[in-house]
Amino acid sequence: MHSPILGRHLLLELYDCANDFLNDPAKIENGLQQVILAIGATAVQSVFHRFEPIGVSGVIVLAESHLTIHTWPEYRYAALDLFTCDSRIDYNQAEAAFKALFKAGRSEKTELKRGQMSHIQKQVI
Amino acid sequence: MHSPILGRHLLLELYDCANDFLNDPAKIENGLQQVILAIGATAVQSVFHRFEPIGVSGVIVLAESHLTIHTWPEYRYAALDLFTCDSRIDYNQAEAAFKALFKAGRSEKTELKRGQMSHIQKQVI
Repeated sequence: MHSPILGRHLLLELYDCANDFLNDPAKIENGLQQVILAIGATAVQSVFHRFEPIGVSGVIVLAESHLTIHTWPEYRYAALDLFTCDSRIDYNQAEAAFKALFKAGRSEKTELKRGQMSHIQKQVI
Repeated sequence: MHSPILGRHLLLELYDCANDFLNDPAKIENGLQQVILAIGATAVQSVFHRFEPIGVSGVIVLAESHLTIHTWPEYRYAALDLFTCDSRIDYNQAEAAFKALFKAGRSEKTELKRGQMSHIQKQVI
């Protein structure tokens, strides 16, 4: 049976994070790459950028879609997105790993379905 | 007055797109960069990747957060995300420009608020 959707998208709001971590792009990327391995995803390419005076943005293109992070160290807040088109990836495991990585005191998640197969009318292959 | 949120996030499902476009990372990036300029955002770095046999994933880190794209040419579908922390960017303009770029026959959008200021308890600056 085909999946009714093409991808899943986890959006995490991470509050009350460890703020020594949130302004360090190398530590953030290293931590995220470890989570990617742990959940069985595959990193293809990445870009991390530290803003002046403060804050980090990073994106990792995955074979399964993408992971992005934006941090506001001054607010101890990070916005994390995981978008995957492989239904085997465990989103509960991923969420727990991200919360632990950032030592988030609280978090909120949204999980969305991307690409409804029922809406695809013109298959060309 | 401070904004009650740190960022806005537009998620677009683009169906029935022009499929000659969806497998060409250079054309997609060029088109997206033009939209970025038009809406007054600033690209910092980008990564585009073409998958074999088909499909493109791309991310553009913005000064205002990010733009991502994933395409399924075989389904004439693309998943586009625009995340910005600059409240001056016009999301209606952005949405119309993206739909025109991909010649989407139909689309669905979700717009989410990211980083609720009311949930930020520990401001360190």
